[in-house]
Amino acid sequence: MNWFKDTLEIPTRGKGLYPFTDAVSARIRTWGIQEGMCFLYVQHTSASLLISENYDPTAKDDLEQFLEVLAPENQPWHTHTLEGPDDTTSHLRAMLTPASLSIPIDRGQLSLGTWQGIYLFEHRAQRHQRKVLLRCLRGWFIIG
Amino acid sequence: MNWFKDTLEIPTRGKGLYPFTDAVSARIRTWGIQEGMCFLYVQHTSASLLISENYDPTAKDDLEQFLEVLAPENQPWHTHTLEGPDDTTSHLRAMLTPASLSIPIDRGQLSLGTWQGIYLFEHRAQRHQRKVLLRCLRGWFIIG
Amino acid sequence: MNWFKDTLEIPTRGKGLYPFTDAVSARIRTWGIQEGMCFLYVQHTSASLLISENYDPTAKDDLEQFLEVLAPENQPWHTHTLEGPDDTTSHLRAMLTPASLSIPIDRGQLSLGTWQGIYLFEHRAQRHQRKVLLRCLRGWFIIG
Repeated sequence: MNWFKDTLEIPTRGKGLYPFTDAVSARIRTWGIQEGMCFLYVQHTSASLLISENYDPTAKDDLEQFLEVLAPENQPWHTHTLEGPDDTTSHLRAMLTPASLSIPIDRGQLSLGTWQGIYLFEHRAQRHQRKVLLRCLRGWFIIG
Repeated sequence: MNWFKDTLEIPTRGKGLYPFTDAVSARIRTWGIQEGMCFLYVQHTSASLLISENYDPTAKDDLEQFLEVLAPENQPWHTHTLEGPDDTTSHLRAMLTPASLSIPIDRGQLSLGTWQGIYLFEHRAQRHQRKVLLRCLRGWFIIG
Repeated sequence: MNWFKDTLEIPTRGKGLYPFTDAVSARIRTWGIQEGMCFLYVQHTSASLLISENYDPTAKDDLEQFLEVLAPENQPWHTHTLEGPDDTTSHLRAMLTPASLSIPIDRGQLSLGTWQGIYLFEHRAQRHQRKVLLRCLRGWFIIG
């Protein structure tokens, strides 16, 4: 059994979902992993990860808008606002969406469902360079 | 160290929580895993996973109702509605609940808390056949 | 490749975020894990885990207040209230925040981002003794 690792650097241009399935898939191909597990971890408290619909762009629009509705800026009870109105909301939105994901690998690729894609969810208004840690375990499974 | 895998098929009859702890436990017994980790992954963007209260059915009712309150159908800002009013809300609800889970295995069984059960959370109104990927690592732990 | 395990006992004094990064880091040092993965699992349905901002205490205050806004007590539709007004809300809040986390280990320590800390999120008003299962895999990675 072997482990492989890399750090993915994902540039963002403000709030929203940034797909990076292809970057993960490319590493898995390069490493020649036929079966195993893929672990993703985001090293930020104002950005998160998401597995979501990768086909119709209106689905992505609604996910982004939903967080604006659920965790709106400029609420009277916000106290953590030193870096602007998107400061505390970025942490609130990161709380509701995952920091870590684990995805099986089969037949040399990520076992995503037909409509699933992997996204970096940026919660700050400014541009950022985000880091996602990629760790893969290559194993030989015994089919149940 | 060995890995085991299977795909669980879970039939659903509309929105709600469907327990499947027993299906996972049965595989772990069959595979004879005494210690290790269990990884679950749902291959859909309109259904998710949940660890929650397995005893009092009113807890389950409130969890289901809460998502109706938090992410209601027929909002004016919804744009992804091609497949009906539960289309975009199914993705919103999947965003708030996990796509992947990792649970320790000890003494031949899942190390769930006393009141914990594993659920498939269906977010669409129609019947579906859902797929959950089960991957288990059998290891021998060194106690800390 | 080796696995290590321990159970962390975290005392809580009512609702809120309780940091326990140091307890995890101490185990990783004791076990001498240079590279690998750390898995955390909470054995409760009324408490959860969170990776979040560890620096400015106002960020923590806003995260706690946000759940009060998002999942308030004493709603007319609540039915699971046998143990008081914080009974059903504790499960709702646990649903929105993770039960399991997986974090890479590099150079002998958790690969957290600069501002990230690990928290136990208590959702009940009373004192509790909470259990978090810690499982670590020690591996030797092949850098991509």
